[in-house]
Amino acid sequence: MKAPDATKPRMQPFLPRTADFTNGKDSPRAFLERCIAEFYNWEPRISAFVSLNLEAARTAADFATERWRAGKPLSPIDGMPIGIKDIIETIDMPTENGSPLFAGFRGQRDSASVAALREAGGVILGKTVTTEFAWMHPRATRNPWDLTRTPGGSSSGSAAAVAVGAISVGIGTQVFGSILRPSSFCGCFGFKPTVSAINRGGSHDALSQSTHGPIAASLPEAWQVAYEISRRAGGDPGYPGLYGPPTCPSPSKPRRLAVLETDGWPVASASAKEALQAASAKLKSAGVTLLSRHENEKIAAVEDAIYDARELSHNIIAWESRWPLNTYRARDASKLSQPMHDLAARAGAITLDDYRRDIEERDRRRAVYQALAAEFDACLTLSAPGAAPVGLNWTGDPAFVIPGSMLGVPAITLPVLQDDGLPLGLQLLGFADADAALFSTAGGVLALLQA
Amino acid sequence: MKAPDATKPRMQPFLPRTADFTNGKDSPRAFLERCIAEFYNWEPRISAFVSLNLEAARTAADFATERWRAGKPLSPIDGMPIGIKDIIETIDMPTENGSPLFAGFRGQRDSASVAALREAGGVILGKTVTTEFAWMHPRATRNPWDLTRTPGGSSSGSAAAVAVGAISVGIGTQVFGSILRPSSFCGCFGFKPTVSAINRGGSHDALSQSTHGPIAASLPEAWQVAYEISRRAGGDPGYPGLYGPPTCPSPSKPRRLAVLETDGWPVASASAKEALQAASAKLKSAGVTLLSRHENEKIAAVEDAIYDARELSHNIIAWESRWPLNTYRARDASKLSQPMHDLAARAGAITLDDYRRDIEERDRRRAVYQALAAEFDACLTLSAPGAAPVGLNWTGDPAFVIPGSMLGVPAITLPVLQDDGLPLGLQLLGFADADAALFSTAGGVLALLQA
Repeated sequence: MKAPDATKPRMQPFLPRTADFTNGKDSPRAFLERCIAEFYNWEPRISAFVSLNLEAARTAADFATERWRAGKPLSPIDGMPIGIKDIIETIDMPTENGSPLFAGFRGQRDSASVAALREAGGVILGKTVTTEFAWMHPRATRNPWDLTRTPGGSSSGSAAAVAVGAISVGIGTQVFGSILRPSSFCGCFGFKPTVSAINRGGSHDALSQSTHGPIAASLPEAWQVAYEISRRAGGDPGYPGLYGPPTCPSPSKPRRLAVLETDGWPVASASAKEALQAASAKLKSAGVTLLSRHENEKIAAVEDAIYDARELSHNIIAWESRWPLNTYRARDASKLSQPMHDLAARAGAITLDDYRRDIEERDRRRAVYQALAAEFDACLTLSAPGAAPVGLNWTGDPAFVIPGSMLGVPAITLPVLQDDGLPLGLQLLGFADADAALFSTAGGVLALLQA
Repeated sequence: MKAPDATKPRMQPFLPRTADFTNGKDSPRAFLERCIAEFYNWEPRISAFVSLNLEAARTAADFATERWRAGKPLSPIDGMPIGIKDIIETIDMPTENGSPLFAGFRGQRDSASVAALREAGGVILGKTVTTEFAWMHPRATRNPWDLTRTPGGSSSGSAAAVAVGAISVGIGTQVFGSILRPSSFCGCFGFKPTVSAINRGGSHDALSQSTHGPIAASLPEAWQVAYEISRRAGGDPGYPGLYGPPTCPSPSKPRRLAVLETDGWPVASASAKEALQAASAKLKSAGVTLLSRHENEKIAAVEDAIYDARELSHNIIAWESRWPLNTYRARDASKLSQPMHDLAARAGAITLDDYRRDIEERDRRRAVYQALAAEFDACLTLSAPGAAPVGLNWTGDPAFVIPGSMLGVPAITLPVLQDDGLPLGLQLLGFADADAALFSTAGGVLALLQA
């Protein structure tokens, strides 16, 4: 085994190793120790974790090792090292929500997703850094590709920890851009499922646009982790959960893709735009039809429908955040950041009637978008306006990823572009409950771009 | 002021007193002290409360007193003594979920409904007894009308405490029959709103059929409390919240009512059936048209659609309870009752695909029921098969109230019938999001029956 390269982040995909878990050439415990080595290597510089339970992780990895050797793994992810965003409850570690108001808080249970992951053999290494209440105020995590830059947010620690191979998958949540943006900035695969496809029980993100999803070292592990959770915990109560097969859908070359500009286009860097154009050209040369608002009326209608997705989403989130912000303010307003106070102020200016109009408008926009499903395999755009910005006080612009959140559709970011010599994601947006089809398309796009 | 009658429960409606709060003849603090007197009178016999915060309640009532005197109440319920079912988080008291697994647990926040009630001036007296995790295993609460009988469940303490006038309103939750059944048995008014019309944030009832609602000393206070919560906290995220006016809709004599038998009819007592028939006769003589499955095809279709509502609901609840039961079992299985183990076992026999079929079937049944809305003002039936059964080991048969839960429609129980010399509720079922219309109808029915 080569010594880890201390300077360059390197993801550690788990699924390709599992054949060797059975034949004894490798084991989940050995895999975990390599992850822990990367943790010790990187953590002092990147601050990706809030708390750890290495002893429990090692015990769980030993049990997984025995099961693979016996040919009886609990699932394909049995033994996979996983990190959990610190707004999601774990019975063995605090859930601090990135807020001093929740210092040391213990919910006395595993969240639905964590319980499901443990049942599938997942090895829960620790809790990963979140911005304050998964909103805007960042904590101290740094981007491992450039320590002067943000890792993105709000699932900051999950992305940074996956990027350096301390875990294979980090569970994140996204209401604005909190899975895809940090995945883009840290060079990871990110998957935001159809809204409500993953049970959020025991997580502190009850917003109607919010969705749990994996930040992963490979496309197949993103699928596998989401599938294993949904199979055991389902979606949010009353929803059908993630639809799709028990292993990652096979790559399939798309026939037609809709290229979206979104509100992000005017603020994207020149080299980010060039990177998207180069990828588009490569796909076209492989025979994929790419159309934009300039050639297709339905796409033009979608661009109109997602215009200012940020404003509509922000209003919806603000009303839905009225609680618990009111109870947090009553406890100790001095422990909330300015962005939380701003959100509370915004909520104070919104009435229930305004909110009703906003969610109706969101439904209308979702219907406009759904009309693309008959003609296109997916939509294609950037995952961010460029590489991670310098500085730790801002987690970057979510303009490209808010539309997928507002629309409630599945979205995947592939770490295949670069800007400024740093990672940049290519985003694919699918259609509600057709998450599996999006994985096929994403796999097909990945194969064409890597060819 | 007359001394409280120590032997017969007597509700204490708050809203009729508010005129005297302004002119100084009465005050929220004096009202609270009368409630506290009833608490001390009854609590040793009925065990309705898990925890209390009398000091905070008195302080809140004093502030309300000042506001009424100044002619500036925060809302019509400013100063109203309210109890909170102990699965709903309160920042100043533990939330124990009726389970030793949550002894002393503090969620470090008010739930959405509690925060909204405090903003409206509500005086939170204490936490009321729930069955274990709001499911079947009862705690020690007794029915104040007959101490040998159950108060019903799962909102046992809320109903018992309202019945004796220790609070004017108790917040309950219903997934099977947990608001209407105890209201029926304890002689209270009970209101289960349209599903998701009241924000359940910070409550431990994430089930898709579950709804928060008031158990109240009068029909107007049931409306007012629900309205004040929804106005400030909305419904569940993504839902429009409770629709309706800022004070209780005026009574309106219904033109046509559909009389439902439900699965409960075969097990209803002879005198309960007679009580319903007598009430029906009185309504008919006042000019209301009452039709049943025998005279109307749409009603017959609804009876078919709600047949075995218990089985379908039970399966849906079981799957949705898989989490958190799995994490509670992992903590300490010995601290769960047999009914919780039974529910977990049932969950274990259900797959995600089964669940998807079940929620589709529920949607189908809801559509069948909705077809009545064009022809009927509401549906009429009993709230229980009879008076509260003797014994504290069983909270009674929910056969009459499960249909409303399964259908997700608003339901009201009026304490206007008797069985065995004890309270029995008359149930009215409305249509989704038409909660206000149901209050008009219920008020009209109440006026006709009391005429």
